[in-house]
Amino acid sequence: MAEQYDLIVIGAGPAGYPAALKAAGMGKKVAVVDSGNVGGTCLNRGCIPTKTILHTALLYQELKQGERIGFAGAGPAIHYGKLRERKEEVVRTLQDGILKLFQKNKITLYQGSASVTPQKTVKITGMGETDRELAGGNILIATGSRPASPPIPGADLEGVLNSDELLELKGELFASLVIIGGGVIGMEFATAYQAMGCQVTVLESMERILPGMDREISQNLKMIMKKRGAEIHTGAMVKEIVKTPEGLTCTYVEKGNEEEARADAVLIATGRRANTEGLFTDEMTPEMDRGCILVNRHFETSIPGIYAAGDVVGGVQLAHAATAEALSAVAAMFGEPETICLGTVPGCVYTDPEIACAGLTADEAKERGIQVKVCKYPMSANGKSVLSLQERGFVKVLADPASGRIMGAQMMCARATDMISQFVQAIELGLTLENLGNLIYPHPTFSEAIGEAVRE
Amino acid sequence: MAEQYDLIVIGAGPAGYPAALKAAGMGKKVAVVDSGNVGGTCLNRGCIPTKTILHTALLYQELKQGERIGFAGAGPAIHYGKLRERKEEVVRTLQDGILKLFQKNKITLYQGSASVTPQKTVKITGMGETDRELAGGNILIATGSRPASPPIPGADLEGVLNSDELLELKGELFASLVIIGGGVIGMEFATAYQAMGCQVTVLESMERILPGMDREISQNLKMIMKKRGAEIHTGAMVKEIVKTPEGLTCTYVEKGNEEEARADAVLIATGRRANTEGLFTDEMTPEMDRGCILVNRHFETSIPGIYAAGDVVGGVQLAHAATAEALSAVAAMFGEPETICLGTVPGCVYTDPEIACAGLTADEAKERGIQVKVCKYPMSANGKSVLSLQERGFVKVLADPASGRIMGAQMMCARATDMISQFVQAIELGLTLENLGNLIYPHPTFSEAIGEAVRE
Repeated sequence: MAEQYDLIVIGAGPAGYPAALKAAGMGKKVAVVDSGNVGGTCLNRGCIPTKTILHTALLYQELKQGERIGFAGAGPAIHYGKLRERKEEVVRTLQDGILKLFQKNKITLYQGSASVTPQKTVKITGMGETDRELAGGNILIATGSRPASPPIPGADLEGVLNSDELLELKGELFASLVIIGGGVIGMEFATAYQAMGCQVTVLESMERILPGMDREISQNLKMIMKKRGAEIHTGAMVKEIVKTPEGLTCTYVEKGNEEEARADAVLIATGRRANTEGLFTDEMTPEMDRGCILVNRHFETSIPGIYAAGDVVGGVQLAHAATAEALSAVAAMFGEPETICLGTVPGCVYTDPEIACAGLTADEAKERGIQVKVCKYPMSANGKSVLSLQERGFVKVLADPASGRIMGAQMMCARATDMISQFVQAIELGLTLENLGNLIYPHPTFSEAIGEAVRE
Repeated sequence: MAEQYDLIVIGAGPAGYPAALKAAGMGKKVAVVDSGNVGGTCLNRGCIPTKTILHTALLYQELKQGERIGFAGAGPAIHYGKLRERKEEVVRTLQDGILKLFQKNKITLYQGSASVTPQKTVKITGMGETDRELAGGNILIATGSRPASPPIPGADLEGVLNSDELLELKGELFASLVIIGGGVIGMEFATAYQAMGCQVTVLESMERILPGMDREISQNLKMIMKKRGAEIHTGAMVKEIVKTPEGLTCTYVEKGNEEEARADAVLIATGRRANTEGLFTDEMTPEMDRGCILVNRHFETSIPGIYAAGDVVGGVQLAHAATAEALSAVAAMFGEPETICLGTVPGCVYTDPEIACAGLTADEAKERGIQVKVCKYPMSANGKSVLSLQERGFVKVLADPASGRIMGAQMMCARATDMISQFVQAIELGLTLENLGNLIYPHPTFSEAIGEAVRE
């Protein structure tokens, strides 16, 4: 007989595991099924490993200016083998943290492949003789996404990697890397590899890198990275990848001309697709849209009692959005009020300088015919930025011209990813430029630039 | 005849120069008098030079764990001569910024010593043959403070320094340093010198270091710094300093026992006193209290038309408080509404981890009989902290138990000094734990700990 649970969560990533913890905290009996390690893409192949590498890579980059800030002698070298071990150590530590929380909250974790049966039970396979079936009041699909493979001839050649494969790679660092895709993932890898001394070429098909973000941020980042020695081509359509004796060659078309980029390896970072394979039977499949599961505003699919959240439902595909969606789903399924402010999802890019955004951009306002007042402050006028050699970048704030209500913020500066929360707070709670301008910002901090920007 | 100004500002530090800029922006004719370089203590002998040194020192300290995060080989050495040059470069850059703003805003800067005459004009001396007299509608005293010299026998010995002198010192770093005073200044110097490899001993007369701050922060910092090899003695009264063939010896009494601490040099960091010498004549001196100028809530002294702001009026003695006070004074003197929220002055300490506080502490709540709910989250559970080896510390939030209104926050974690502004905003605008808990915090960031703390 199937074991009974109040909630069966499929996927132990940033959507699944907080959902399980929340439901358990409400006194529900919860099972989580995942075919891999707990933590999902975010912990195992995404946010955490990339930020661990970036932490060391950017420290290494900062040391290149060591003489200027009072160091003598060469800095240490990057030891990629040790850095990989460090990354694995961090991942294990955080996995252990989740496992302990599961244990403490009496959540049952099954390692295996899950599928939803026509009877709305969950069958787990791949566990050997212990294969089993779970039945529950509610199911949450939180299976996430994986790197998409674009139909580029040569994409299956050895040395052409997606982000999962690049992170897993043993051996030394490549001397050169072509990155196809200048979105968030592409630009973070570009930042890390360039910082570690690799010759990086980015090929982005859109008219600018980080296409969804503030235009000035895209332009600034391109300029900064080119100055550091990266090649960045926008409006560049990759036609094919071929193997040569020297490595790999990508042929791309830029402004009507066919060009070539050569490197030891190619990273494909052109987006991600939802993981739904094998989840459902033909008899019972929820409505889908371009590979993603469709949900209503309570994150319930077209099948009552089956919810979905995170990358598998499409949308912004960020870990913190996945968590918020999944917590909202749990609130809805157990009749609690939904309180999380899903309207303002901050977006962060861990480049150098960091980038963080919340709310409306100037381009979006223009497209939607919304009048906005734009305030901007350059970090070159901020003392803390000057003393830490972080003068590039700016803080930009968009507000309603009549009321002064803050509608959006784009930051490109040191610590931006940690300062954006003040703007999320301001946007969600209807605060104004005046409200923010009247506060005292401590000196000397990067955050003083917020005060200066809104007072402008 | 005396030249006429709408406002004469005495002191070009963080109180004086923003006040001058604000008044000039209102169309007023403004003069600023300072006997030294623009920027005051903050820029020349305080915030900026110390943070410039700390930036390099803490980078150096982080590299001591280099092997653990993927580096091979030794890190670079500290070259104190170069670091001093770097400090001077930063100071010059920021001085130039102020001078340009003065020029752009048509503010006249006089370098000389200012005194207020019985006729309420300002006499400037020390400029040679160009000594002159200014007359104005309003005067703002923004002369700041300087290190206090406690009456300790031996405090005038060679090698016994205050913070101004230590920053100016040429030559190599000391191998050992005794710091008398474990307040903010003492602990920041202790952090920098210890990070750079100096053997540091702190002697604090109060029962704990950082006496005004959250008790747990004091305890944690003491523990962390002791673990790194510093000696920290609290409840330690220094009796005298004597010169010996090996350097300097401080005799102090701790728990009734007389003890000795030896070092190459001694830093006295026991507080600061207001700069009022020579400012006034006997015929016209504003009311004072223990060396500080008394002001009303508009920052006007007992003499109508003479205002004072910043360290010279006592109070918290922080650069950003000085600026806010001076801007309020300018608003008041020219009949503008005062809008700056002076009620919540954040306090930052640039130790490792950073410390930042706003609003009420648990001890203050207890003393004042205020019931508070205390929420706390350890950074060891925060992913970004784990991946950057910053697991020590916590975020603590105090709220009204009935309404959930946030009343205070104490942070001891990476980037705390830039994250505290979100709490200043929350406290001043009456936001609640629920308001902050319902926001989406980006992952992976240190700021996620804020969300976790308030949801607790």
